[in-house]
Formats: sequence, structure tokens, C-alpha cells
Amino acid sequence: MSKQRVLTGITTTGTPHLGNYVGAIRPAIEASRSSEFESFFFLADYHALIKCHDPAQVHQSTKEIAATWLALGLDTDITTFYRQSDIREIPELMWMLNCVCSKGLMNRAHAYKAAVDANLEEGEDADKAVTMGLFNYPVLMAADILMFGAHKVPVGKDQIQHIEMARDMGQRFNHIFCSKKNPLMTLPEHVVGDNVAVLQGLDGRKMSKSYGNTIPLFLSEKQLQKHINKIKTNLLEPGEAKDPDTSTVFQIWQAFASEAQTAEMRQQFADGIGWGDAKKQLFALINEEIGEAREKYNDLMSRPQDIEEELQKGAEKARQLSVPMMEKVREAVGIAGLK
Amino acid sequence: MSKQRVLTGITTTGTPHLGNYVGAIRPAIEASRSSEFESFFFLADYHALIKCHDPAQVHQSTKEIAATWLALGLDTDITTFYRQSDIREIPELMWMLNCVCSKGLMNRAHAYKAAVDANLEEGEDADKAVTMGLFNYPVLMAADILMFGAHKVPVGKDQIQHIEMARDMGQRFNHIFCSKKNPLMTLPEHVVGDNVAVLQGLDGRKMSKSYGNTIPLFLSEKQLQKHINKIKTNLLEPGEAKDPDTSTVFQIWQAFASEAQTAEMRQQFADGIGWGDAKKQLFALINEEIGEAREKYNDLMSRPQDIEEELQKGAEKARQLSVPMMEKVREAVGIAGLK
Repeated sequence: MSKQRVLTGITTTGTPHLGNYVGAIRPAIEASRSSEFESFFFLADYHALIKCHDPAQVHQSTKEIAATWLALGLDTDITTFYRQSDIREIPELMWMLNCVCSKGLMNRAHAYKAAVDANLEEGEDADKAVTMGLFNYPVLMAADILMFGAHKVPVGKDQIQHIEMARDMGQRFNHIFCSKKNPLMTLPEHVVGDNVAVLQGLDGRKMSKSYGNTIPLFLSEKQLQKHINKIKTNLLEPGEAKDPDTSTVFQIWQAFASEAQTAEMRQQFADGIGWGDAKKQLFALINEEIGEAREKYNDLMSRPQDIEEELQKGAEKARQLSVPMMEKVREAVGIAGLK
Repeated sequence: MSKQRVLTGITTTGTPHLGNYVGAIRPAIEASRSSEFESFFFLADYHALIKCHDPAQVHQSTKEIAATWLALGLDTDITTFYRQSDIREIPELMWMLNCVCSKGLMNRAHAYKAAVDANLEEGEDADKAVTMGLFNYPVLMAADILMFGAHKVPVGKDQIQHIEMARDMGQRFNHIFCSKKNPLMTLPEHVVGDNVAVLQGLDGRKMSKSYGNTIPLFLSEKQLQKHINKIKTNLLEPGEAKDPDTSTVFQIWQAFASEAQTAEMRQQFADGIGWGDAKKQLFALINEEIGEAREKYNDLMSRPQDIEEELQKGAEKARQLSVPMMEKVREAVGIAGLK
């Protein structure tokens, strides 16, 4: 049996932060080393255009995200790491899927419905400020997945529906255009991590760009310490015992510490460690884990042409699958060359 | 000033008939010879997939339509004659346009609204059997037009709205992503023929595939005569004067006859020409006009690889525009290569 294909998209609109690192990047790179799986990672820049009409930001984010994954040791020989927009077959497949996808299915997509509900609540037109990009987003995502015959797609709970929609479109395509014995589309399954690490941000809420409470991953040492110092704490003085389980400092510590280190810090909290001291230790711990990668990151960021080269290598690998796939799809729907 | 670009798409779902020839193909080929214009003709096979899920039919229709235009003397040196699906940049541009097109605009598209109204009338769900292909159709059409900077798009009255939508998307794109001095998108204008010739079909209604009343253009002589014999007439006997202005035979005659020939036939109607005789003369007139092209058509249909070669030549010409255009578009939206 061939390896299970796992596909992960990363939308290129922001700067990677500690929450992305702990919750997504670190476990994904770890999993990509398993010989059980064949991992596909892509920079979802077509998706980025739905929300972001700032070209400089999309470009910068693409560069930062690519450099981040490479600096953290993603092995581009064993994985396929590419930029979505280098695979020109993807929007073409999206069109084929559009033609088998019922509009009713898209009407029920969560992201779209959330936009509609928000509009209606404010007494606005249901579709106010909704673009066709947002409405079509699940079809593009289905093309991303079905193009490469992905078996597994790791997602958050809010994305399970989109994987089901991709299955639905794949099934429809197979039913209409393929023989039962030779379906072209592999139906994907979602994978929802049982205990995805959710990191708290500066204010104690989930670390998220939209809350403006993030600690960017590759800050300079000085900036990293500065950001850590801004983590919200209570007013307890040094010498007063502190509760680790309600502390963001401790929560982030756990995400980077070994079990022994975690137990040790728990003891220090009980012993009344001062917040300044705890934050210094937290900085040292994080800095130890990411310091080397930061250097690589800064180096890569100064050589964008080398990042580009890695992406082109990935695109070439990806197109070894997408080009023959689209030839088959074109043949199946009747638009291949005349003969 | 550079030549005005005129762009025409031909959906590849049917077999060309006399109505297509008189109403669209003959005048379009005629116009393409004018040195005022630079003509683009494309086989709209992506569009065909919206309505037609029969691969063999799409393939056969593409072949027939391409052979028809070539047999009728379309000059592929002075025009650009290509198959839509050979221009892989088109679905990609469609995605960019999706991201600047409001969903509200598509809600108002005639074709979609007609489908909704028909559903509601039958007490069904508004979107029953509506695919995302149908809903997205105006966005694909906008990509077809904007890709090549078409100035003029000849359309029927029912299509004017789609050209306006393409303008709207082009304007939005320019506004968001381009400087005022260097807009990337040329805003197209619709051209509605003042007196487009509408041919009557066998039953006297407009000749149309959907009425099943067509006379295919390149029938064998025998079959052509047979079809003409089936044109509905009244019961007047030879010798009885007939009204040319209510006769389908006369209506079709006019579309092929010189003024002198038309006057002559009008006289023959007054003189009581028999229907059989009139139909024989009609056959001879049509056969004279299209006989030579029919031979070329049959010859071409037996050499599909030669048709394919013409389409590849057209695709190459078209891609000389679409490839650099998409490079500019990618740069504008922020997804060009890293640097």
C-alpha cells in the first residue's frame, strides 16, 4: 500500500507567531518526518487574496512563512513544499468542481453563513461585503485537496465541514465522469488533533493575529524579551505563592518545557517566584529552542531568491502530480485535444 | 491608435446549424476581415461544462465547431482562434476576479435569476439544481474578456448584463490593485447588432437547438434536401398565389439570396409556385453557398489532428498575451515570485 498523503495549507496573510509554532508548525514538521506519511505543505496565497487586498502584505507573508518552515527544518526532500499559485492546474480543477458542485452546498458553508448572520444582525443586506472569493472558498479548497489525492487533511474543528464538502465534490465528479472501477478523485478525510496545543497570547486569550496579542516567532532576542515582559500577570509580589494553572507565563512555559522543567517551574510558582524572574526564564527557554532557527530565518530572509528556489523545487514536485492529474480530468470531462 | 479588439466565444455543446451560420458565423467571419478590428474567436469549452456533462458531446461539438469556422474560411493568420481550455491563465484570472467581485452582483445575474424563478414557481428550493458553475459563469466570462483586453464584445441583448458585470469586475480590480495611470484591465463594451438575422426553423419558430427545429449546416446534399422538405408550409396547391412574408421557405431564401433573387422568388410566390418546387430552389441556393465549405468541412473532420494544429497555433498566439498579462496580474495582487 502506498503512503497516506497528508495535505496542509498555510494562508499567507500574517507573520508566524509562537501560537502558530506550537499549535501547527512544530507538530506538522515533526509528523512530516514519519515514514508513514507523505506530507504536502503549501503556501495558500490564492486563499490569501480572499481577505487581503494588500499585495505587499501577501508577498511579505509568503516570504516569512516559507522562511519560517525552512528555518525550522522542514525537509523539502521528503515533503512537498510549494506555493499554491505555482500550481496553475489548481484554479482549472476548481472550475471543473464548480460545474459539479451545487450552489446549495455552498449556501451552507460556515464561513459564508457567519458573514450572512453578522450582516442580518446589523440589518444589512445578507450578502453585504461578501465576495465571490469567500463564497467559492470551499471549492478552491476542494481543488487543493483533490488535485493531489490527499487522504488526510489536518484541520481545526471549524474546518471539518470543508473537508466533507471536498468529499462531496470528489464523489460527484467520480459519479458523473468516471467508471466505478477508476474514480479519479480520492476522497479525503479530516484529521482533528485530539490535543492541539492552543497557546495563550499576551492578554491571556488564545494567541491570534485577530486579537493583536501575538508574540511573533522570530523576533530579535531583545524584542522577544520585551514581548514576554508584556504578558499579562497579576499583582502578586515576589515571595507570594502563585497559581501556575491560571498563569499565561506558565501556560507558555509548558509548551516549550520538558516534563521535568514543567514540574520545576510549578515548584517555583509555589515558592513565590517573581514575575520578572519567571519571564526571564521563559525567554531563555524559548530562545534556546528557537535561537538557531532564528539565525537561519534571518539568513534566509536576506536571500529571498534561495527561498524562491526551494519553492520552485516544490512546485516541480507538485506539478509531477498535478499536470498528469489535470490531463486525466480534461479527458474525463471532454475537453482534451481533438482526435 | 491600436486596433479595436473584438472577442467572441462559441459554446461547444451543439452542432452548427443554418441559424448559427446566418446569424453569427457568416457575419463574424465577414467582420473579421476588416482591418479596423483584431478578432478573437474562442471555443468556450469551460463554459460548455456548465450545462453539458457528456464528455463525448463536448468533444464532438468542439471538433464540429472548429471545423465549421475553418471550412467557412476563417483566416487564422489575421484572427486569433483558440480553445478556451488551452489558455490555462483564464481560470486563474477568474479566481482573482472572484476575489474582487461581490456576491450580490452575481445574485442579480439574469441566467441565475431565471433558474431561481423557475424553481420558486414550482415550489422548489430556490437553488435547486443550480451549480456553482452556473452561478460563477459571469466571472469566467469576465476573465475571458479582460484577459485579452477586448474592447468590444458582440452579444445578444440577453448578454449585455454580463458585459456590464465584466466592466464592473475590471473596474474593481483596477481600483484596488492598479495606479490610476496604469490600469491593467481594459473595460469592454458590448456590441448588439442592430439587425441580427434570425433564421426560422423547420416549424417556423426561431431556429434553435432547444426547439429541435434546426437544419444542421453541413448535412449531405441528400439530407439537406430532406430537411428542407420538412419545413412547415401551408396547404396551398401549385398555381395558388402564396404569401412570401408568412413563409419560412421564403424567410430562409432571403438569408441566402441576392436582392435580385429575392425579388424573383417573391414574384414566383405571387405566381403560385408549388412548395416542392420552391424547396428545390431553396436547396440549390443554399447548396451553392455552402457546398464548397462542406467539402472542406468533411475533409477537416477526417483529419482532427489538423484542426488541433490550428487550435494550437491559436493558443500560442493567445498565450502571447495571456501569459504576460497574468504575470502582471500576479505581481499586482502580490503573489509573484519572491524577491
